[in-house]
Amino acid sequence: MPRVCLIGTGGMLPLKNRWLTSCYIEHNGKAVLVDCGEGTQIALAQFECRISRIEYIFFTHCHADHISGLPGLLLSMGNCSRTEPLDIFLPQGFGDIPRKLMCICDKLPFEVNIHELPSRQGLLTADKIDPLLRVSFLPLRHSVRCLGYSFEFGRKPVFLPEKAKALGVPVEYWKVLHSGENVTLPDGREVAPAEVTGAARKSVKLTYVTDTLPFEGIARFAENSDLFICEGMYGGEDKKESMDKKGHMLMQDACLLAQKANAKRLWLTHYSPAEKNPLEYECTLKTLFPNVTVSSDGENTEL
Amino acid sequence: MPRVCLIGTGGMLPLKNRWLTSCYIEHNGKAVLVDCGEGTQIALAQFECRISRIEYIFFTHCHADHISGLPGLLLSMGNCSRTEPLDIFLPQGFGDIPRKLMCICDKLPFEVNIHELPSRQGLLTADKIDPLLRVSFLPLRHSVRCLGYSFEFGRKPVFLPEKAKALGVPVEYWKVLHSGENVTLPDGREVAPAEVTGAARKSVKLTYVTDTLPFEGIARFAENSDLFICEGMYGGEDKKESMDKKGHMLMQDACLLAQKANAKRLWLTHYSPAEKNPLEYECTLKTLFPNVTVSSDGENTEL
Repeated sequence: MPRVCLIGTGGMLPLKNRWLTSCYIEHNGKAVLVDCGEGTQIALAQFECRISRIEYIFFTHCHADHISGLPGLLLSMGNCSRTEPLDIFLPQGFGDIPRKLMCICDKLPFEVNIHELPSRQGLLTADKIDPLLRVSFLPLRHSVRCLGYSFEFGRKPVFLPEKAKALGVPVEYWKVLHSGENVTLPDGREVAPAEVTGAARKSVKLTYVTDTLPFEGIARFAENSDLFICEGMYGGEDKKESMDKKGHMLMQDACLLAQKANAKRLWLTHYSPAEKNPLEYECTLKTLFPNVTVSSDGENTEL
Repeated sequence: MPRVCLIGTGGMLPLKNRWLTSCYIEHNGKAVLVDCGEGTQIALAQFECRISRIEYIFFTHCHADHISGLPGLLLSMGNCSRTEPLDIFLPQGFGDIPRKLMCICDKLPFEVNIHELPSRQGLLTADKIDPLLRVSFLPLRHSVRCLGYSFEFGRKPVFLPEKAKALGVPVEYWKVLHSGENVTLPDGREVAPAEVTGAARKSVKLTYVTDTLPFEGIARFAENSDLFICEGMYGGEDKKESMDKKGHMLMQDACLLAQKANAKRLWLTHYSPAEKNPLEYECTLKTLFPNVTVSSDGENTEL
């Protein structure tokens, strides 16, 4: 089951009591990080998320509050003797930003591959990503090119030992079969994974949208998400006009999108530094979308 | 009197309980910052140091733990509507590093002037710096070009109201005279500042040295410092060999330098992340240099 940890919940600048918005998702021992602002590596340590497990970093966009922590994180990965390559994904036209930031990361002991994603809705091709992870992206409406992401984590079918035993499959073949590969037994018989596992299980969907005006396409993109993480810069309706100008949304907008998307749960994030106590809106927001959480740093769940 | 705040005391990477080494010095309403690693802007806020007052940033060198927080700090200065230019000083050949890091700082409402300092001992010329602040620099011995800094804060002579009264100088001229300018009174007499102030006062000297092997020249450079801030990566003598290789020093080395320099006080900083409790060495270190402080984040004094 994917473990999700919302490392930080702030927008614009890191505060002494609120880290910048970033999300760590670990599944089957591998992790995805979405955005990495100043201090994200400290917050990852604080919430016991293992940077050694991060295989992919997805950047929504290249504003400083979403990317300024990258060089520090890469160096800390290097200090942990990482040798596995790291893949970074970001909106088209911005690949030079991480390259420039990496001017203070000489001699990393691992490769960093930077992939620019096109400015249209799309799906990551399997050669770039783990086959059990399906990632789609959606252009958002912000002051710079910005992407929302949807992660679908495939779940292996349950292994059924009683079936394996009935077929006389020795225990040492079980792991390989459960990983999805056929095996040939010592007696010459070929056994397929489907013979020893249960039915296919529904994948788990997490959608991550921040730094955008609200629009219908987000609801379709987030449809049936098990968890929808969405920005809500302010909880006060009086901020609507200024949010429109800046390419952001209110907590209320996010609730309406979650409802239209038929999401199971909504976590709000990316609060303005001027929102000192975002939690005060939670009761009101529940009238718009009952399963909303005004998240705090370190908000944590298994999906 | 200059107020000094050691914002952080860590080296290599920021920890959840230790910010990266950086120092804020405020004098006459203007401030100097030395180094700015990831999280320094958060620590500045935590210790109530005002980023709006920072006029100069001095970088010892361009390793990430000393400079990665620059873009975030600049953006936060911009968010506070700063319009005054900011001057950045760093070792020769490294001016492109802040320029590259600033790729995520578009539209700053103020000018950033980057000055490279030569690789020999020197003194900042008065056209680049406040005349009441005398800054000298010393090449250190690290894996990359690195500078130590010595700041001498000039102190205005005490204003003597009884002398001003005896000379019949109206109160509205006192401030100008104390600022060091001559005035012409309504009756045509010219009065010079020296006629209404006490004797010249000794300036206050703070020396800041980090990321270097220990060597004699540091003691001469730090001579008679009121406060000597110096790295001490480890307190254990068993780390001497590895520190030699990496271009760092032990807490003991710093104490010996402070003694040779005849410094009034020594603050240690830039501890290795592996030094979990640097304070444990304080008693032993006092036998080498009695006025040593194994500093903690936010160590604070007036000089």
